[in-house]
Amino acid sequence: MSQSSNSIADGTASSISNVETTSDTAQLLSHEEVASTSNHQFNKPINFEDSDDDDEIHGSHGIRRRQPPQKIEPGSLNILSAKYESLDYDTCENHLLLDEERKRGYPFFVWKDIARWFIILLIGIVTALIAFIIDICIEEFSKIKYRELKKSVDKYVLLDRLYIPYLLWVLSNICIVFIGSMLVAYVEPVAAGSGIPQVKCYLNGVKVPRVVRIKTLLVKAVGVITAVVGGLAGGKEGPMIHSGAVVAAGISQGKSTTFNKDFKIFQYFREDHEKRDFVSAGAAAGVSAAFGAPIGGVLFSLEEGTSFWNQALTWRTFFGTVVSTFTLNCALSAYHGRAGELSYPGLLNLGKMDPFPFQFYELPVFMFFGMVGGMLGALWNFINYKLAVFRIRYIGTPWLRVVEACLVAAASATCGFLMMFLLNDCRPLGEDPTKVPLQLFCADGEYNALAAIWFQTPEASVRSFLHDPMGSYKPWSILVFVVCYFLLSTWTFGLSVSSGLFIPNLLTGAAWGRLLAILIQYMLPSNTINPAKYALVGAAAQLGGVVRMTISLTVIIIETTGQISNALPIIITLVVAKWTGDFFNEGIYDIHIQLAAVPLLPWEPPPLAHNIYASEVMSHPVFTLRTVENVGHIVELLKLVSYNGFPVVDPPLADVVEITTYKRLRGVILRSQLIVLLQNKIYNENANTTWSNLNVDMNMFRSEYPRYPSIDQLEIADWEKTCTMDLRPFMNPSPYTLPHRASLPRLFRLFRALGLRHLPIVNDVNEVVGMVTRKDIARYRVWRHRGHMGMEELILSSEI
Amino acid sequence: MSQSSNSIADGTASSISNVETTSDTAQLLSHEEVASTSNHQFNKPINFEDSDDDDEIHGSHGIRRRQPPQKIEPGSLNILSAKYESLDYDTCENHLLLDEERKRGYPFFVWKDIARWFIILLIGIVTALIAFIIDICIEEFSKIKYRELKKSVDKYVLLDRLYIPYLLWVLSNICIVFIGSMLVAYVEPVAAGSGIPQVKCYLNGVKVPRVVRIKTLLVKAVGVITAVVGGLAGGKEGPMIHSGAVVAAGISQGKSTTFNKDFKIFQYFREDHEKRDFVSAGAAAGVSAAFGAPIGGVLFSLEEGTSFWNQALTWRTFFGTVVSTFTLNCALSAYHGRAGELSYPGLLNLGKMDPFPFQFYELPVFMFFGMVGGMLGALWNFINYKLAVFRIRYIGTPWLRVVEACLVAAASATCGFLMMFLLNDCRPLGEDPTKVPLQLFCADGEYNALAAIWFQTPEASVRSFLHDPMGSYKPWSILVFVVCYFLLSTWTFGLSVSSGLFIPNLLTGAAWGRLLAILIQYMLPSNTINPAKYALVGAAAQLGGVVRMTISLTVIIIETTGQISNALPIIITLVVAKWTGDFFNEGIYDIHIQLAAVPLLPWEPPPLAHNIYASEVMSHPVFTLRTVENVGHIVELLKLVSYNGFPVVDPPLADVVEITTYKRLRGVILRSQLIVLLQNKIYNENANTTWSNLNVDMNMFRSEYPRYPSIDQLEIADWEKTCTMDLRPFMNPSPYTLPHRASLPRLFRLFRALGLRHLPIVNDVNEVVGMVTRKDIARYRVWRHRGHMGMEELILSSEI
Repeated sequence: MSQSSNSIADGTASSISNVETTSDTAQLLSHEEVASTSNHQFNKPINFEDSDDDDEIHGSHGIRRRQPPQKIEPGSLNILSAKYESLDYDTCENHLLLDEERKRGYPFFVWKDIARWFIILLIGIVTALIAFIIDICIEEFSKIKYRELKKSVDKYVLLDRLYIPYLLWVLSNICIVFIGSMLVAYVEPVAAGSGIPQVKCYLNGVKVPRVVRIKTLLVKAVGVITAVVGGLAGGKEGPMIHSGAVVAAGISQGKSTTFNKDFKIFQYFREDHEKRDFVSAGAAAGVSAAFGAPIGGVLFSLEEGTSFWNQALTWRTFFGTVVSTFTLNCALSAYHGRAGELSYPGLLNLGKMDPFPFQFYELPVFMFFGMVGGMLGALWNFINYKLAVFRIRYIGTPWLRVVEACLVAAASATCGFLMMFLLNDCRPLGEDPTKVPLQLFCADGEYNALAAIWFQTPEASVRSFLHDPMGSYKPWSILVFVVCYFLLSTWTFGLSVSSGLFIPNLLTGAAWGRLLAILIQYMLPSNTINPAKYALVGAAAQLGGVVRMTISLTVIIIETTGQISNALPIIITLVVAKWTGDFFNEGIYDIHIQLAAVPLLPWEPPPLAHNIYASEVMSHPVFTLRTVENVGHIVELLKLVSYNGFPVVDPPLADVVEITTYKRLRGVILRSQLIVLLQNKIYNENANTTWSNLNVDMNMFRSEYPRYPSIDQLEIADWEKTCTMDLRPFMNPSPYTLPHRASLPRLFRLFRALGLRHLPIVNDVNEVVGMVTRKDIARYRVWRHRGHMGMEELILSSEI
Repeated sequence: MSQSSNSIADGTASSISNVETTSDTAQLLSHEEVASTSNHQFNKPINFEDSDDDDEIHGSHGIRRRQPPQKIEPGSLNILSAKYESLDYDTCENHLLLDEERKRGYPFFVWKDIARWFIILLIGIVTALIAFIIDICIEEFSKIKYRELKKSVDKYVLLDRLYIPYLLWVLSNICIVFIGSMLVAYVEPVAAGSGIPQVKCYLNGVKVPRVVRIKTLLVKAVGVITAVVGGLAGGKEGPMIHSGAVVAAGISQGKSTTFNKDFKIFQYFREDHEKRDFVSAGAAAGVSAAFGAPIGGVLFSLEEGTSFWNQALTWRTFFGTVVSTFTLNCALSAYHGRAGELSYPGLLNLGKMDPFPFQFYELPVFMFFGMVGGMLGALWNFINYKLAVFRIRYIGTPWLRVVEACLVAAASATCGFLMMFLLNDCRPLGEDPTKVPLQLFCADGEYNALAAIWFQTPEASVRSFLHDPMGSYKPWSILVFVVCYFLLSTWTFGLSVSSGLFIPNLLTGAAWGRLLAILIQYMLPSNTINPAKYALVGAAAQLGGVVRMTISLTVIIIETTGQISNALPIIITLVVAKWTGDFFNEGIYDIHIQLAAVPLLPWEPPPLAHNIYASEVMSHPVFTLRTVENVGHIVELLKLVSYNGFPVVDPPLADVVEITTYKRLRGVILRSQLIVLLQNKIYNENANTTWSNLNVDMNMFRSEYPRYPSIDQLEIADWEKTCTMDLRPFMNPSPYTLPHRASLPRLFRLFRALGLRHLPIVNDVNEVVGMVTRKDIARYRVWRHRGHMGMEELILSSEI
């Protein structure tokens, strides 16, 4: 290793350009550009300039580095998986593109722009309609379920045989959840959870397999209906966002892999760059539909997802979110018999809040709420993380996952039942517009307040905690509810069901916010405390403590409550919640992304990394192709290694066998391009065939996007292997490159800002000496522990 | 030219690396990296692949290009000025930086982060206080002015000698405006106007001279007070945003050029990158203070300014905007005797709007409003542009500018007086809480409605048009008012006074919105029309039509009216207004930026430009320095050319005189670095002196930032010229480079995404063949005309 590094520094790297000579060193990995595994799996010690100790923490004038762990433990956060492929945000500016530009000209450019707006319009409408259908299903099924349960309770409470409705409740929960859980576990596991981490990864540039397929959308839609109707402590907002992303990917590509149908429209959007832009708009439309928050949707997409700020894209995204919320509003208004009134902007409606006046001296109170939210959120994340690790270790098979989901469904019902049974919190009928007032052991004309909370969707419960007047609930009931629901919701997130965490956390937060309001009222009996204010602030604090979003969450809550005057308290609370939570651990989405070992690129390079050089980061040796290459050689190379990008180099001069000119970088060609070329037999059978005679255009590549056959699926006859292939018209002729002495931050910024997939590293005379891919960079991460800070290297594994 | 291009394509470019041999070709320009002027001033014809016609529009399969104009006309929009320097967003990762990192380690990194938050806190507070002072001054002075005028009117209306109060009004306007105008014209011309275009340029990466100095802030503050009190149709919001930017630059750098004071704090933030981030936060804090819109502030800074989306930066900016609006709120509440109540979130308060329910069928009405706003906005921009060109041509001297400002001040008073005098629009007292009810010719117990509009600040007038009940104004009065104010406001923007255009356009829009509401009421007499709804939508449409902001303007209006329920109508209106306006011309800020010939980089490269190559875009020949260079040579070079960055290349081998190895790129060094090195005499007097013995650190460079002495100010003794200077520890050792065959879009994306200042272009063996700077790229621009589209090349001039 160190020898090779030195030779690079001298500019005379002897990396191998001929496959035959290197087959012994190649690692046969099943996926993507994983060259680095061969080096990093064996924990090569880092050549640190002036420190050679083998401690876990290397100290060199305050610069700390932590070595990667020695073995891969399930649930470790220090691993990157080699299985994820990357998206390429960079355009391949080959001759075909130039040709197309020249042929089609500006009218095509204008047409593409119009098509983009049209697609965004469709995305907004379809996303909203899906949200509408899911919402209506949940509403109607829940209504039926709780009505029947109420009937049963009312009947058996008099007979003192309450175990019958209890069993009925447990059974109905289990049955409903079973359906969704089976679908998720056996049909499409990627549809589990809220989908936000997956969408976040996708927007960051990681291709999470099957995440934007229509099958995923179907499973997700059915899954979220069963999860919420099944009484789990989950929400439907996260899945809505995921749905929006799938819709966007589907519509913009004009084809569906699930249905194996290619509509042959919008083919010019079949590239990672365009697709990712649409997915980002789709996710925003999903947020918009879920919360009735068009501005919040745009901000969500910016804060959590999109790496690329672009005015035009943001402007289109905004259009999409407006269309989405508008469509949903129309549909819901019509459904509720108020067509044309536009009074249902989003799925989640926290009810109109009155503006609450607040005083200067209340700010510390809001900060306190923020701190509590941050701590509770961190605790929630910690428990959920531990549960996730437990699941990875011991709940490996699909049927075990289904069993766990059913168990949680039963536990939810049990919790609710015990609370209703044991805490006899009665209040007079008529005050609260609950749909299913349950008398239970209360006096006539009264109903059980906790039953009202449990016998409705969590969303309606949030509204109850926000808007019910002071004294509607006993403090003890609320405390028990908070503890139960806190644990239930953290147990639920990560199950093999489709459900999000927004609503459960808002509910928990609104509950403890109201509890604190009662406490404050108790301490300051002379003042009239507005419970809605503290319940809302508590809800914001809890959710902020879990997800650690700030500006987008603020806007979402403002838009959901329809009241901007409360912005300042919410902002202050969220800021403090984030600071407090970040002291303990990361946001829940980031934790799950790390658990999945996704090579996510953060916003900034790790600090104090200027002394790490590209020569240390890059993967080498590299496998190169000549500008005019033998077909047999290409086939062998593709079969031998699993890399997705190959530098194209100058062929050796006819008689001068000089190693340096041989490797001079000419361009980069992708595996997928080579596959398509082989598939279509674009060969030069003799010296006179040129590519322009072959009637090749961009659509040949587009029609295969994004799933190309593997090299083993192609049948290459022996005569073909003797042909040559001119790669020059197809390769990217001017890839971004960096010299081997570039620092990691420099590498990182280039890679991150331009959304690259492959970055050739060259020496002083422009010869390729290595390749850098996403995983090579994502390996270096900031590490914080008990006030210390440093950098750690993650282990790259192909086992996870 | 074409010969040189060809030689580059062959990879054997013979550009000159020795100054002596090229002194005949060098252009002595007074500023920045203007090498390109030598090529482009002479309108070199573009070697277009298959089209050689000399028409204005080159057509090649739909790809159109327009040639630059043959001569420079004042007021042309097709010129880029060579006088602007660029900012450098890229970090120079030289040995000094590495050394500092290693010495200070993570504690320093953490400390810097804390310092950043602290500075943002200060920026928020100071910006808010400045906003507070300006607001109070305007309020109090206006109150005095209009009270005295009222007294005079009341006295002389009975004597039938109304010309006396008229003259008094005119005179007071002229006197007040005279002060502000003199200050702007003679003390600091960059303080003219709203400051938003200048801030936008700065955030885009163009160093507009003196734009963030404290002197500018002082002139701006006094100027905006005089402008508004002087009765001009201008607002104070734009200047607030500029103030925020100045405050941010001042505080974050810990020094003031105006006062020639260096506090020696925050030295580590003395680089373009950090300064620009703070300025972006400052501008956001300014918006936040001006409109009480913390979220709108962040979005404004993103939409209009910042090119670099970064989660951490956005999050800090958000903190700054919250602090700003909170501080202003506290201060204003205290001033108005309601300390602790926090009821004044921003300077501009449009008054609490009630949520206005709207029906499905009203959407076309909003779209119509948007169209009207877009057209009126485009007209406003057109008139303002013509006026600006007129000013450039004929109002050249400062005193003429002062005279014009006074003329407008007189015209404003005259308009107002004529309207009050001729349109006898009376209504009963008591309905409208105007501070100065003027009876004029009205019956007793009535007052003149138009006088009420004119005898208050424009901001209060907006509130009147929004909130006054139906029937408060006669339609004819409003129509006359709209026409007058429309013309006055477009005449005012661009005068030599400090004032913005938000309020005047909101006022015009609110007025015609109300007029249309009256019309609708007339057509649908059975319905009750809410004038507030249409006045607000009209205000949004007019402002949107002028500035063409979408998402940030939506949020600002929502936050200013404190009502989110109205979001959808406002969004739809703004979207349509932007589309309509963009059909005719660009936003007013962009027009003024183009008039100032600023090389602003747009968001995207011009379309269909993949057939333009770096070799065509770059400036060449380049002037290079050797890694260890003779001091005399450096001094000569700096005196000879005005470039700001020089590639550093390998020295020739001792005995092999080979031209190709000579020019191999090693790094890039800036003029400013060379100046500081010369100033501090960091020489190698003999071979044994190395830089590490010289006790040099980053602070040597930082203490001079951002204004370095010119080469002529340095005294270099003859003995010094015989010394050598080792540039390697100081240069940027791994600059981003691109091959000469890279396309313009590729160049553009790299340059824009990373905020570069210099980009060396290399050939196939890594030899420097050219340099690309901002102006080389900004020259290529999209061109749209009557449905046609193409690309035009701007002319680069050192005359403007």
